[in-house]
Amino acid sequence: MKKLITLIALALAATAGASAQQSLWDLQDFETVTVNPDKTVTFKIKAPKAVKVQVTGDFLQPTVLEIPNYGKVEQPGVAELKETPGGIWEYTTEPLESELYNFRFYVDGLAFNDPSYTYVQRDISNLMDYFIVPGGRADNYIVQDVPHGTVSRVWYHSDVLRMDRRMAVYTPDGYESGKTRYPVLYLLHGMGGDEEAWLCTGRAAQILDNLIAQGKAKPMIVVMTNGNCKHQSAPGESAEGMFKPYNSGSFDTSFEAHFKDVIAFVDKNYRTVKAAAGRAVAGLSMGGGHSFQLSLNYPKTFDYIGLFSAGLNIHRSEGGDIAPQMYENTYEKLDALFANNPKLYYIAIGETDFLYDSNAELRKYLDGKGFKYTYLETSGGHIWRNWRIYLEDFAQKLFK
Amino acid sequence: MKKLITLIALALAATAGASAQQSLWDLQDFETVTVNPDKTVTFKIKAPKAVKVQVTGDFLQPTVLEIPNYGKVEQPGVAELKETPGGIWEYTTEPLESELYNFRFYVDGLAFNDPSYTYVQRDISNLMDYFIVPGGRADNYIVQDVPHGTVSRVWYHSDVLRMDRRMAVYTPDGYESGKTRYPVLYLLHGMGGDEEAWLCTGRAAQILDNLIAQGKAKPMIVVMTNGNCKHQSAPGESAEGMFKPYNSGSFDTSFEAHFKDVIAFVDKNYRTVKAAAGRAVAGLSMGGGHSFQLSLNYPKTFDYIGLFSAGLNIHRSEGGDIAPQMYENTYEKLDALFANNPKLYYIAIGETDFLYDSNAELRKYLDGKGFKYTYLETSGGHIWRNWRIYLEDFAQKLFK
Repeated sequence: MKKLITLIALALAATAGASAQQSLWDLQDFETVTVNPDKTVTFKIKAPKAVKVQVTGDFLQPTVLEIPNYGKVEQPGVAELKETPGGIWEYTTEPLESELYNFRFYVDGLAFNDPSYTYVQRDISNLMDYFIVPGGRADNYIVQDVPHGTVSRVWYHSDVLRMDRRMAVYTPDGYESGKTRYPVLYLLHGMGGDEEAWLCTGRAAQILDNLIAQGKAKPMIVVMTNGNCKHQSAPGESAEGMFKPYNSGSFDTSFEAHFKDVIAFVDKNYRTVKAAAGRAVAGLSMGGGHSFQLSLNYPKTFDYIGLFSAGLNIHRSEGGDIAPQMYENTYEKLDALFANNPKLYYIAIGETDFLYDSNAELRKYLDGKGFKYTYLETSGGHIWRNWRIYLEDFAQKLFK
Repeated sequence: MKKLITLIALALAATAGASAQQSLWDLQDFETVTVNPDKTVTFKIKAPKAVKVQVTGDFLQPTVLEIPNYGKVEQPGVAELKETPGGIWEYTTEPLESELYNFRFYVDGLAFNDPSYTYVQRDISNLMDYFIVPGGRADNYIVQDVPHGTVSRVWYHSDVLRMDRRMAVYTPDGYESGKTRYPVLYLLHGMGGDEEAWLCTGRAAQILDNLIAQGKAKPMIVVMTNGNCKHQSAPGESAEGMFKPYNSGSFDTSFEAHFKDVIAFVDKNYRTVKAAAGRAVAGLSMGGGHSFQLSLNYPKTFDYIGLFSAGLNIHRSEGGDIAPQMYENTYEKLDALFANNPKLYYIAIGETDFLYDSNAELRKYLDGKGFKYTYLETSGGHIWRNWRIYLEDFAQKLFK
């Protein structure tokens, strides 16, 4: 075989650091982001012609702005990188608390992702770079050396919506090889999000893997649907093509009406506990609103309900509702729900969330009636950092 | 409920175009890339302070360079964008043939991904923007309105490597609800790639969905492993953390030695045809080398073998091999393989591929022996465009 042999390994190695393809692009070969042992973080960008290089992100002290008729908005801070020899710009943070942080560079005012930094999260039409500082809260957002569940993208048919739709499904370690039935958490995203949001930005698979491995959460299936019933799936994942993601949502009962198709599909295709005691529904923002409405309109279906920064009124009275009765008689349905003693009714919100007041009104109503619920208030606003915290907290209270 | 109600929908809509989070970043709100009806493509970037804005990619006429002791390399062309009022830079291509194209902006020499353009593919440490021109070859790379298979990320244990490892698995539409057994294509990536490569850059799920829907390929399971046995999984998907991906590979028989664990796992956990007639193995570059060696060292296991731009000698004699005999007596094993009359032995390569000569030597050997094989030669080199073409062609020849 000697004659046949050429030193392919060497030839392949010559492309190192770039691409498996022959058509190579010249990228920076040093680390763009380094999390240092002292938990400071160093950013480095090669931009010899730049006049100003900045980095922004949620690791910098934010400014809280009060916007009239809207609420409070956190504006991330901005730090300046300094030029070093060779046109390499650098900035090192203060020591940071353990967290998953998003960041972005600005080069002479231009929002910029470094193509050689491959750790990105998509939040609607926003491709955000991220890094993780370990050693505390974020340890459960990191892939640890524990048994891992399976994550699948699965298509189901909705008779109500007359379309095929995509969901993401997490099944815990041992699901494939075992025979056990598992409870199901239906986990819903916010406006403009899709079935990828909780996996990507929410770190749902990592949180569940780690909590289950630590014995803090029961092994469960997690079903992540697409809450925008105008779409089949995340952008680029259906025949609608590669449209620019935007903040569209379903505020017209279509999501709630079609949810019976979701439950039927999941109960048919997975080894589930087919009872309220084996079902939780939770969501963030619009998904919190969906969870609120699902818990009211599918009585005795969910024993566990989680409202994360919930948009509680998702009704726009512009007609076209599939099931208008679903958004009616809300108080009566709420009373009926609590008459059934749900095992967990969970409300969580950040102190600067623009939905704070409407959630406070819901709590006031529940308090007035003496309905029991669990409440978590955190710092910060309507942000993914909080939603990861809520999921981690909520998941530990389920199916016990 | 009126009192409780606030116009959440309006408040949420105020964040349109940006992020579901409160912490918003200012991104361009127009389309970065537009594929026009005449199949020209327009690029648009807002960069008011830039002096020069360029775009490069494989849609531009490449230059072929001859590098001594290496071979031919395609260098992508570069086009200049023109500034228009408002600091928006534009460039429109000639009409393009139907294809999936990668591109990158350079702003004053800085390689740049627009954070508001969310269609990216990772090739090792290179985050490449892409677009698709429909109306021809690329139609099978697009998610069409056809039944879709399920795509899962699954963990298996390898006794040989003593580690948990991740694979990606495509199961065809109908798998979950049916009882049929399916044949399996083991589809292997190149050096520096991982279990994500064929799904992301290779469009394997779209190609299979479309070919199966058109009746051109048999419904099959596709198993995509990680060919680098030093790693459990793609970067960021194991406890190794968020390292910078690099061109590492397994050239030491470890991948081939552990492959029995892969087959055992797949045959145990999926409804497979457990026979050579129901198994194909194919790969690109290093994965083509792995396929070559697997076909030789697992006799009567695969009736279909595909070598795409294959690195045929993946042996580096630096010791540490798990099963050194696997890379020995190659000619004898090749003769034995062909004595069994494999149903398909498929070699494909681009005319400017740097591995062209070694593949030509293999063909010469096969020709000399009168061994039957199928050969496809395409234009271009060691590039993903070719590997998608080879997969589409190869998949149609399987299990028939």
